[in-house]
Amino acid sequence: MTKAPITRLELSKMIDHSLLKPTLTREDTLKGLEVAIKEQVASATIKPCYTALAADMLKGTGVMVNPVICFPLGYDTTETKVFETKQVIDQGAEEIDMVLNLGALFSGDYQYVQDDIAAVVEAAQGLTVKVILETGYYEDLDLIVKACQLIETAGGHFVKTSSGFASSPYKNEFGETVGYTNDILRLMRDSVSDKVQVKAAQGVRRLKDALEVIEIGFTRFGVSRTTELMKEYDETYG
Amino acid sequence: MTKAPITRLELSKMIDHSLLKPTLTREDTLKGLEVAIKEQVASATIKPCYTALAADMLKGTGVMVNPVICFPLGYDTTETKVFETKQVIDQGAEEIDMVLNLGALFSGDYQYVQDDIAAVVEAAQGLTVKVILETGYYEDLDLIVKACQLIETAGGHFVKTSSGFASSPYKNEFGETVGYTNDILRLMRDSVSDKVQVKAAQGVRRLKDALEVIEIGFTRFGVSRTTELMKEYDETYG
Repeated sequence: MTKAPITRLELSKMIDHSLLKPTLTREDTLKGLEVAIKEQVASATIKPCYTALAADMLKGTGVMVNPVICFPLGYDTTETKVFETKQVIDQGAEEIDMVLNLGALFSGDYQYVQDDIAAVVEAAQGLTVKVILETGYYEDLDLIVKACQLIETAGGHFVKTSSGFASSPYKNEFGETVGYTNDILRLMRDSVSDKVQVKAAQGVRRLKDALEVIEIGFTRFGVSRTTELMKEYDETYG
Repeated sequence: MTKAPITRLELSKMIDHSLLKPTLTREDTLKGLEVAIKEQVASATIKPCYTALAADMLKGTGVMVNPVICFPLGYDTTETKVFETKQVIDQGAEEIDMVLNLGALFSGDYQYVQDDIAAVVEAAQGLTVKVILETGYYEDLDLIVKACQLIETAGGHFVKTSSGFASSPYKNEFGETVGYTNDILRLMRDSVSDKVQVKAAQGVRRLKDALEVIEIGFTRFGVSRTTELMKEYDETYG
């Protein structure tokens, strides 16, 4: 067996297990939460309407409850984002993912983008807030740098690549659409200080993908195929 | 010239001019609102964060302000949908579009689906509420009938096919993805009483599409290519 560059638990504790497909039922969500517990991931990323359900099921398991707020277009009003943040925290959320206001960013309304995030960070009362850039949309990569800086200034704890619901021009070696390139990941890592972590999403499907983003300095990634990914780890290093 | 089956104004007053792309800037939105006024559409369908802007610009023009609520996945909490509905009405919304909770529907939690819509209808205080089914997701077409009935029972004023952001297996004769088939449109029209109107979206791109959905009994449709569609009307019947 090859020597593992990372333990099984170190790997699983970087995974946000994604349960976000709109047609996913209550039962699908419960099954997904069981996977999250079995594999000991960092968090289960869930629909806000299932926050109380997830909080109940994940209590005491070491897996965090991670609803997405006003997802995935990012253009709800700031007040609505704040309202939903407070409500899911009341229902047991332990982290949240949100999307920055892309239209405001592309308009150059940087103060709006920053204030929108800062309002959610304040409402989150110290809980980790991950802010999605939608890296597939940027023709001007300098704007990715700007977005990362705005997120850090606003107090966001993570900059995150993608919602998984946006179109993107990028493909992996299997011809599958992904949300980012490794160059973009490096740019994001370099655009924030060490106080801010970075999360990859819409791209980590196989063990190789995970090890690559870790190498670049990413400490969290969204995964739907968690069972398959951990099985691949066991087959490679078990 | 061929005799027109419908006047120019009758056609334009069935159009909800869609300004929903997440990267659309403030300036893009203003230009889109100018198109909405020039072509005298029914409403401009806008991002909730631009409600006040649109209300200011559309005042006295006869074009309604139509934000989308917790769009497009439909799985925000009911309380969040209600909050955003009230806020956009305070800011000048005159109609709203919302998405039903698809996961709840596919779970068979019909009471939840109905209560979620009814809460928004109540918050809308008599304003027209259009409820999106995402017709591309249904393998069991009986569930489309059920969804339409739930929307009518909840007090929704329109059943609407699609958000334009969901995947769909349906294609038109040009190979473009569309949200529905004409059979689905007929099923929707037949599944609600005459008190409820029907709106097509993710499919009306050319004059022929518009005339087809009108023939089936649809009284509103979402259009991005409004200028081109009205130009085609002028060239055909002008």
